[in-house]
Amino acid sequence: MSTSSNAAVTILGLGLMGSALAGAYLAKGHATTIWNRTAGKGDGLVAKGARRAATAAEAVEASKIAIICVLDYETTRAIIEPLAEALAGKLLVNLTSGQPEQARAMAKWAGERGIDYLDGAIMSTPPGIGQAETLLLYGGSRALFDAHRTTLAVMGGGSVHVAEDPGSALLYDIGLLGIMYSTLAGYFTSLALVGADGVSAKTFTPYVEKWLGALATFLTSMGQQVDARDYHGAEATLAMQAVGLNHFIEAHERRGIEPVPIKYVRALVDRAVAEGHGADDLPRLVEYIKKR
Amino acid sequence: MSTSSNAAVTILGLGLMGSALAGAYLAKGHATTIWNRTAGKGDGLVAKGARRAATAAEAVEASKIAIICVLDYETTRAIIEPLAEALAGKLLVNLTSGQPEQARAMAKWAGERGIDYLDGAIMSTPPGIGQAETLLLYGGSRALFDAHRTTLAVMGGGSVHVAEDPGSALLYDIGLLGIMYSTLAGYFTSLALVGADGVSAKTFTPYVEKWLGALATFLTSMGQQVDARDYHGAEATLAMQAVGLNHFIEAHERRGIEPVPIKYVRALVDRAVAEGHGADDLPRLVEYIKKR
Ligand SMILES: NC(=O)c1ccc[n+]([C@@H]2O[C@H](COP(=O)([O-])OP(=O)(O)OC[C@H]3O[C@@H](n4cnc5c(N)ncnc54)[C@H](OP(=O)(O)O)[C@@H]3O)[C@@H](O)[C@H]2O)c1
Ligand SMILES: NC(=O)c1ccc[n+]([C@@H]2O[C@H](COP(=O)([O-])OP(=O)(O)OC[C@H]3O[C@@H](n4cnc5c(N)ncnc54)[C@H](OP(=O)(O)O)[C@@H]3O)[C@@H](O)[C@H]2O)c1
Repeated sequence: MSTSSNAAVTILGLGLMGSALAGAYLAKGHATTIWNRTAGKGDGLVAKGARRAATAAEAVEASKIAIICVLDYETTRAIIEPLAEALAGKLLVNLTSGQPEQARAMAKWAGERGIDYLDGAIMSTPPGIGQAETLLLYGGSRALFDAHRTTLAVMGGGSVHVAEDPGSALLYDIGLLGIMYSTLAGYFTSLALVGADGVSAKTFTPYVEKWLGALATFLTSMGQQVDARDYHGAEATLAMQAVGLNHFIEAHERRGIEPVPIKYVRALVDRAVAEGHGADDLPRLVEYIKKR
Repeated sequence: MSTSSNAAVTILGLGLMGSALAGAYLAKGHATTIWNRTAGKGDGLVAKGARRAATAAEAVEASKIAIICVLDYETTRAIIEPLAEALAGKLLVNLTSGQPEQARAMAKWAGERGIDYLDGAIMSTPPGIGQAETLLLYGGSRALFDAHRTTLAVMGGGSVHVAEDPGSALLYDIGLLGIMYSTLAGYFTSLALVGADGVSAKTFTPYVEKWLGALATFLTSMGQQVDARDYHGAEATLAMQAVGLNHFIEAHERRGIEPVPIKYVRALVDRAVAEGHGADDLPRLVEYIKKR
């Protein structure tokens, strides 16, 4: 299956995610070397043509590109630090989750040792790996990303370079996942609400899907207000929203449901109105969330 | 502009929303009669061909369809109740916001007086009125909705019948707006997060738009788990999520940001894990939100 135009890659870590990454490269005909701390995890991959290395050092020798995806940064460092010389002049792609600060420190460490380094975040579960729409975020040198774009896109067609800051992929990852958890908290609360009146998730969810699409279109102008720190209310003032929010809370409480996310927004709105910002628009609330 | 195939309509209430509704009918050539408690509000509409009625009773006489959109249900009742005889045999469309219970009571009142009644919710601000994508939800008789579908679609091309329950439009409205507020709480929190590392809303928001689209595709299978009350974790267990959530909270706190929505989800996850559901999937959390 391997063709000469496809770069050889090494995958370090064969957990759920590392195995999916290796599988995607094998499916596209890349010479793929695999390694995992605990033996026995890559049998299915070996059957599909992967070369198993006995040590991480041996694995890194086999390719010019090493991709690591393990539990956390401590684990990554423990595996990578002894391999600095072997990695010099090669590309190390770290897809392990962590904090932006950890990615920045690792990039600095790699840079000092002549190792090309990209730090990524995978915005998908393992079944999405290798698919056309799957989003992976990369921070670090754009030139490096561009040079390896085709190889990186094997893991997800939606792979993008975010910023030169090597911590940016993890920063965006945390920001996007935070929005996911907030949205799901709202979704689950609303399922409880409509469920109390006998409406199933199956019936309600198509409206939610449509609504999230509509919601996405509001964000650009809200973001502009935040960047400009000019929150003048054109359509929906905070004073107006406060009235609606009280109604929404009442509707939940009547059904024995505690609408925590809505109450949080109401509390922020109350503070903004109390400080004289009742005529402002919703994005004013960012001022009450960020460090003052 | 008026053509005989377009139904004549009466709009009661010329606030921001009522004026937009009347404007949409005038733009499509419907004979449009308007009324507002305080005189003087419809001058622009009269200039575009609207007929102004001196009283609500006179307004209702002029058309077979009356659409009311005023402050709240108390106001709606105060205007409508004296007009019961004039409305008998006609269609009354109530687009005023409120609680499902209020819509149900009003539908009962109308039904007892031979008034056809639909209760709707407008999922848009006034500038969206009359546009092809704009979503309006209707509860009540589907046969009635179908009979007037074309006339109703003038206010928004995305007008849909939700359920026979006349309270369903307001129930869904509250559910969808609750999700909007939750999502915005997450969005604003994430703007504070990325902003702390120098990333603007303009830079970050395109990723959010894309991500909300991806998120919407997760909901169908989550909803199936909720309906079946079978939360067996296939990909992402609560025990796994707990680890990630702690990292996300840490990233915010380091930047002086209190990530309230994420902490709420973490608290729910902690409860579920403590009760032995660590191997379940996220939708298990609905059980901790709904009345037990
Ligand atoms: N799964 C997802 O949906 C998903 C999505 C996005 C991002 N991620 C991220 O991807 C990374 C890997 O996740 P996963 O789902 O693959 O996790 P996993 O299935 O638990 O696999 C963990 C991997 O880390 C290795 N490891 C753990 N401790 C180690 C140590 N002390 N020394 C050497 N290797 C060690 C494991 O090796 P052994 O086999 O020897 O234990 C295994 O290869 C994590 O950072 C995760 O946050 C996962
Ligand atoms: N604006 C939006 O973005 C939006 C979106 C979705 C739904 N809605 C809903 O649409 C409805 C109207 O909103 P709006 O934006 O048009 O509000 P608005 O601009 O404040 O207008 C309120 C309307 O209610 C009338 N009204 C208030 N008290 C009255 C009373 N005691 N007797 C008779 N009429 C009275 C006002 O008449 P006067 O001129 O005489 O005061 C005016 O016509 C509300 O239920 C709102 O929740 C609005």
